[in-house]
Amino acid sequence: MREFKRLTPYKEALEMVLEDVSELEDVEEVPVSEALGRVLAEDVVSPIDSPPFDRSAVDGYALRAEDTFPAREYSPVELRVVDEIVAGEESGARVEPGTAVKLMTGSKMPEGANAVIMQEMVEREGEVIRVLRPVAPGQNVAFAGEDVKKGQAVLQKGQVLRPQDLALLKSIGFRSVKVKRKPRVGIIITGDELIEEFDEGALKAGKIMESNSIMLMGLVRQYFGEPVFYGVVPDDEGAIRSAIERARGECDLVLVTGGSAFGDKDFAHRFVKLLFHGTTIKPGRPVGYGERVFIMSGYPVAVFAQFHLYVKHALAKLVGARDYEVQVRARLTERVSSQLGRHEFVKVWYENGEARPIKKKGSGIISSLVESNGYIEIPEDSEGYLEGETVEVVLY
Amino acid sequence: MREFKRLTPYKEALEMVLEDVSELEDVEEVPVSEALGRVLAEDVVSPIDSPPFDRSAVDGYALRAEDTFPAREYSPVELRVVDEIVAGEESGARVEPGTAVKLMTGSKMPEGANAVIMQEMVEREGEVIRVLRPVAPGQNVAFAGEDVKKGQAVLQKGQVLRPQDLALLKSIGFRSVKVKRKPRVGIIITGDELIEEFDEGALKAGKIMESNSIMLMGLVRQYFGEPVFYGVVPDDEGAIRSAIERARGECDLVLVTGGSAFGDKDFAHRFVKLLFHGTTIKPGRPVGYGERVFIMSGYPVAVFAQFHLYVKHALAKLVGARDYEVQVRARLTERVSSQLGRHEFVKVWYENGEARPIKKKGSGIISSLVESNGYIEIPEDSEGYLEGETVEVVLY
Repeated sequence: MREFKRLTPYKEALEMVLEDVSELEDVEEVPVSEALGRVLAEDVVSPIDSPPFDRSAVDGYALRAEDTFPAREYSPVELRVVDEIVAGEESGARVEPGTAVKLMTGSKMPEGANAVIMQEMVEREGEVIRVLRPVAPGQNVAFAGEDVKKGQAVLQKGQVLRPQDLALLKSIGFRSVKVKRKPRVGIIITGDELIEEFDEGALKAGKIMESNSIMLMGLVRQYFGEPVFYGVVPDDEGAIRSAIERARGECDLVLVTGGSAFGDKDFAHRFVKLLFHGTTIKPGRPVGYGERVFIMSGYPVAVFAQFHLYVKHALAKLVGARDYEVQVRARLTERVSSQLGRHEFVKVWYENGEARPIKKKGSGIISSLVESNGYIEIPEDSEGYLEGETVEVVLY
Repeated sequence: MREFKRLTPYKEALEMVLEDVSELEDVEEVPVSEALGRVLAEDVVSPIDSPPFDRSAVDGYALRAEDTFPAREYSPVELRVVDEIVAGEESGARVEPGTAVKLMTGSKMPEGANAVIMQEMVEREGEVIRVLRPVAPGQNVAFAGEDVKKGQAVLQKGQVLRPQDLALLKSIGFRSVKVKRKPRVGIIITGDELIEEFDEGALKAGKIMESNSIMLMGLVRQYFGEPVFYGVVPDDEGAIRSAIERARGECDLVLVTGGSAFGDKDFAHRFVKLLFHGTTIKPGRPVGYGERVFIMSGYPVAVFAQFHLYVKHALAKLVGARDYEVQVRARLTERVSSQLGRHEFVKVWYENGEARPIKKKGSGIISSLVESNGYIEIPEDSEGYLEGETVEVVLY
């Protein structure tokens, strides 16, 4: 019998991968406008206070709050408007007792003033405004450094940049930002049974549509990488060897599908010095890794599980990404059982706080992936979860 | 006092938007390899059974399960191997009683066989294999149509295409797929106080770095659109009018920031016949909409809330997208209070099943967006939620 002599426990194998993969040192400086979804290569420290000065948060009148304390609707306080400025201008006037300066949202607070009253809240007649209610000191003022202080670390290395992060970068003066180079991920598909162009006759005669490459390219893009497709390679020792060697020379990571088991035609694992081959995961047990090469299954569902359980984490390590998974807690709608000794990857549909396990089994069943939007993991020492138990779902 | 005469309730305003925005009819046919993240324009019906034939799920021997029923470790059943096929080939042999055919993962099942035994589970000697345990009928066989049946709707209109969806499409013969055209979304930023190039002197004199455009462009991209930036337009009636007219002619939707309140320089709302102007949302109250134009705030946090509460849903309607929000349930780590009559947008950090409200207030405080990864909504008739209450978080 030729079988895996030993299945490496899931986590042990994952640790081997993460120890072997080093964070890329290559950094690219890209315009902030092109940095969406990229991974920050260094902490960002603000070079300025933002806002750089106390400013008005509304369109209205800057005044001394103390002046308004006696104001009542039946006995308004009157203030004289000594200046009016428009957005982006600065008043030269000083707000002395009994006076006010008209300004706009974002205007710098004039000297002497410590609060702003919204223009809708006053009655104006000529150069005089009437204030009907007291205004608290600081009201409607955005203070200098209130958003970000000079020298403050505002974004951390490893952050995946979102629209609001780009806005912050721009607001504190960054025109470009240092992000990690996208790892190049070579994809090699092996298998004489695969066809790339649809041909119903060939399918009926035993061929199979190749669909792992398009799935892996999408997954690699989702997790920070740039896929490089090396095509479908026939089950030929020389062809597979040279494809792997070429890909390894050109890429940071290589994924080979279809050569993971011990079939007579499974050559891929012979050319790579593997740290492990065969782990406790299910599906996807025959996964192997060594020398920046993952040996993966031919079946789409197994490939998908191997990607999420191993490759995704390797990609995150390569770019140093934090918070790259969306994990949610959910109530399991029905029992799932698992074999002791297996680390199971269970597809679920998550909705309204509940996770419904997808019952379709079989690692060729792509529709089971399509009908799911996340997965739960059941470690080796568990026989599964009961209906109603709280589980952690990773969304995809 | 010039104020909003009436604040339209949040949902009422949202319904007005969604009634006014029509789903785009334009469909693009794109190669499956370029369809990641696009929105499917029609249901996809499988033209074939997949797999198109019964096939082996493992490398092993196809046999008649009945033959193995007497097999025991101390008294193995012997079967004669009558054919050996490689992947993608078809056996011409028929599996008669007492015989087996060697095949590979994915091979078409030969006639007469109804189960497969993994090759690791048998002992082979010359042309004979020894089976030590009974094999169940159907074991290790993937049946025709098990993944997808001919005529079955496998993907629904409105689905946002993920890697596994592309794999399914390819596996059933699709080379291209019909997706919705990306809506063009014009972005017009108004405000004399804004500068686009960092200039600390100008900032200290009262200018403000413009950061809404980069944020809105990122948000539009995240929600299926193609942003078109019309630049920063000065607070000039003619300039704003012509920018809006141009953008409306070229785009499916237009976002104008900075012209939403009733300041003396807020012109934008004068050129658009608004269905509403001023809603109960907080922050972002002065939002307006009409004639495919959103009038939005100048403050980034208000703009962000207006985007998520209104614009996002309009974009989803334009492309007919389903499941475009990730909603999770969470336990609130501390109390949040809200003003009656306001529909509050409360930023939170979601982690480990808990939502922690971000306390930083102020609609200019971009860092409050950066420190959050989702939001909860508190409708008009609620005064907020207690610590420990379960809330629905929308992740971003």
